[in-house]
Amino acid sequence: MRNDKPSLAFAYAASKYTQCFTPRLVRRLEDTANVLDFAPMETFADERAARLLAQTEILVTGWAAPPLTDDVLALCPNLRLVAHMGATIKSTLTDAFWSKSIRATTAVEAVALPVVEYTMAMVVLYAKNVLARADDYRHRGIFGNHGTNPLDKGLIGTTIGIVGASRVGLQVIERLRAFDVEVLVYDPLLSREHALALGAEKVDLDTLVSRSDIVSLHAPVLPETRHMIDRKRLGLMRDGATLINTGRGHLLDHEALHDELCKGRIHAVLDVTEPEPLPPDSPLWSAPNLLITPHIAGPAGSERQRMLAYVVEEIERFTANQSLRGEVLATAIHRIA
Amino acid sequence: MRNDKPSLAFAYAASKYTQCFTPRLVRRLEDTANVLDFAPMETFADERAARLLAQTEILVTGWAAPPLTDDVLALCPNLRLVAHMGATIKSTLTDAFWSKSIRATTAVEAVALPVVEYTMAMVVLYAKNVLARADDYRHRGIFGNHGTNPLDKGLIGTTIGIVGASRVGLQVIERLRAFDVEVLVYDPLLSREHALALGAEKVDLDTLVSRSDIVSLHAPVLPETRHMIDRKRLGLMRDGATLINTGRGHLLDHEALHDELCKGRIHAVLDVTEPEPLPPDSPLWSAPNLLITPHIAGPAGSERQRMLAYVVEEIERFTANQSLRGEVLATAIHRIA
Repeated sequence: MRNDKPSLAFAYAASKYTQCFTPRLVRRLEDTANVLDFAPMETFADERAARLLAQTEILVTGWAAPPLTDDVLALCPNLRLVAHMGATIKSTLTDAFWSKSIRATTAVEAVALPVVEYTMAMVVLYAKNVLARADDYRHRGIFGNHGTNPLDKGLIGTTIGIVGASRVGLQVIERLRAFDVEVLVYDPLLSREHALALGAEKVDLDTLVSRSDIVSLHAPVLPETRHMIDRKRLGLMRDGATLINTGRGHLLDHEALHDELCKGRIHAVLDVTEPEPLPPDSPLWSAPNLLITPHIAGPAGSERQRMLAYVVEEIERFTANQSLRGEVLATAIHRIA
Repeated sequence: MRNDKPSLAFAYAASKYTQCFTPRLVRRLEDTANVLDFAPMETFADERAARLLAQTEILVTGWAAPPLTDDVLALCPNLRLVAHMGATIKSTLTDAFWSKSIRATTAVEAVALPVVEYTMAMVVLYAKNVLARADDYRHRGIFGNHGTNPLDKGLIGTTIGIVGASRVGLQVIERLRAFDVEVLVYDPLLSREHALALGAEKVDLDTLVSRSDIVSLHAPVLPETRHMIDRKRLGLMRDGATLINTGRGHLLDHEALHDELCKGRIHAVLDVTEPEPLPPDSPLWSAPNLLITPHIAGPAGSERQRMLAYVVEEIERFTANQSLRGEVLATAIHRIA
């Protein structure tokens, strides 16, 4: 054990990150930090945690890490950095945390990438209703693209509405630049000029849902974003339009979505729902034109490695006194996911 | 009518390109050429065709354009360019054509782009079995990614095998550079060095199908590519691997695919089949893990505009004595699609 390396411990649900710890990442981590114990703390309330926390300078957190309350923070006087292998760290970082001079960083960028890819794949497929066309072919023998179906638009000239200029939302806008599409964006914190620089038009939410062929939700979970896509806005969506939700179920009134889908007017792709998992008796299961995927747009399988890889890089930057790429600031915590 | 503009006529199935002729493209075409008649010839064997062909310097062809036989070529002594609003021009350009000094160009690049996008969307979704996971969620209540299913790999570390370094194949390889994936390529005409420069490893076809998690077919229709994916090679595919065919049904032994799918080992996405459309009584309709889409990976709906747009740009380059981007050379016609 070299004394110049900061001591590091883990806190997360042990079952969740088994695929992350590749030999290469473990080696890089050990080159940078003194790993006190690779077995994560699942609670901060036992003797092992007290012993580990007393030495911990860097705490790597993950899914289900317990909150860093006043009492817990009192146990870790040496803590300097919390590095989170995920996107959402709100539940871990209490108000007490922010009163200390401890820094925090998250792998939100690493989590965002597969969500961006999933969203883009769905945009490409739903711009020409590939899955509905596959069903028509299989069940009704309808072959080829005769341009007679108003839903068979193709991607060119399509209007894509991005709700929330989050890290995912911004990357989706960036990817859409490669296409001949019109991009609308709704985000109260994004300026009209910044939107234009991104190649998008800033509009209010009613305008966005009214004009878009595809609406994709990337807004944070905040009191004011609850059911932001409500019955009225679903009703404003164009005939044949598609709603994609890879954000959170919180953003969408699911009962209203069910009713709108049952009119046969719109399509939807939900990777997240409220509640989650969706109960087997949910009426949504029988709504038409709805694809529900089990919260897998984010890092799945091998993609989960990227979260630890990102955290390892952040720790390398931290120990080298370089600026952090995913740093979370107290001033920003209330407007992010 | 300005005499310095070359005279232009069309030959294609009239029903097929109605969505292409936007006012903007029509204006650009008229700025560059003297359009003899916007109504296409569907045959070269009537009086109207004889009258048009006598004046035609540029012939814009499309789907179902009749072949330019010796007799037809005798009718158009002024023909200097054939510009095709599609990818495959083989059936139009006879041996007789190549004995004249007439040039030919195709919009294969414009046709390729949506196929590339479709392929990439399927790669992203099948790398984590999104559609199968949606089915498991809907029918068996299986939620979330617990990493217990060997099929739930995620995109990182996946091996993608590209069969055919065609325009589509090359662009898919190019897109895959952005991912942490291994790319294999099979193409007898691609050198090992060129493959490496593209970020791919050149391998033989047996190796490609044995090592890939996703195999995507982009080879041309040639006698030697018929059923290149046969029973033996389907048997070599890895458990849980996916076969994507956006090329032609010609490349794949469909009976062998049916038998392999019925073992439950592999997944497949077919946008093209043999025969096409697939008859309602084809046993493939009941094979598991198979998505069949009705030949819509290529330009659909508004995307068809891009084919005319490409041809208009080629004609602009032709009249400006610039080199053509999509020029077809007699020496290459036997090894392209």
